[in-house]
Amino acid sequence: MATIFSRIIAGEIPSYKIAENDRFFAFLDINPMAKGHTLVVPKQETDYIFDLDDELLSGMILFSKQVASAIQAAIPCNRVGVMVIGMEVPHAHIHLIPLQREGDMNLSNPRVKLTQEEFEEIARKIASQLR
Amino acid sequence: MATIFSRIIAGEIPSYKIAENDRFFAFLDINPMAKGHTLVVPKQETDYIFDLDDELLSGMILFSKQVASAIQAAIPCNRVGVMVIGMEVPHAHIHLIPLQREGDMNLSNPRVKLTQEEFEEIARKIASQLR
Repeated sequence: MATIFSRIIAGEIPSYKIAENDRFFAFLDINPMAKGHTLVVPKQETDYIFDLDDELLSGMILFSKQVASAIQAAIPCNRVGVMVIGMEVPHAHIHLIPLQREGDMNLSNPRVKLTQEEFEEIARKIASQLR
Repeated sequence: MATIFSRIIAGEIPSYKIAENDRFFAFLDINPMAKGHTLVVPKQETDYIFDLDDELLSGMILFSKQVASAIQAAIPCNRVGVMVIGMEVPHAHIHLIPLQREGDMNLSNPRVKLTQEEFEEIARKIASQLR
């Protein structure tokens, strides 16, 4: 069965899309640790990120670099943190999280609640910084 | 002034080394979130990971993949998590953390206390699994 991320990529489940190319897809995390928290996933369904072949893994970090640059241009932050845990959904994904300070990347922090309009506005702002 | 990581790479500060090539260096975090918690750093001093050029960033994630594979072979774990925060030391570094469950990658978890002998044994076990 397709993972939830494959269904998002296919458009079967709606998402706040940031960017897409032939191999990767980026969209807002709907349970964000900070405004602008984004997930980057490969279109190829692979559970564990280090099982991706070298070319796809390299491509994924370079795609993430571009998305992180757009996040930083759109969302006031000190820098963009990176996290890969990958036990919730069996489809590799990189969390890109705008950080003000180290403690912002703490899994036990309360999540940010946003309205649909706020998610749409954030996604539009970040996407507009991509070229 | 050289960062603490450059001084570790230069051997001026001792470390529990895991691996090294011409561009990267991996060693045990001395304040580990789990046994086998490793840091991967580029020899080039760059503060923010996404300021690394594409070739060095790709190389760093591929080097991390090799180290993660060795960690997983040496340390009983479900998988190896990845974290980049990077506000403590102005020299880009990837945390590789052996995880049993998602909550293991929580910054507020108590750190693991190990003796020098335990660090040495862990470093030796991981290094022996490389290549």
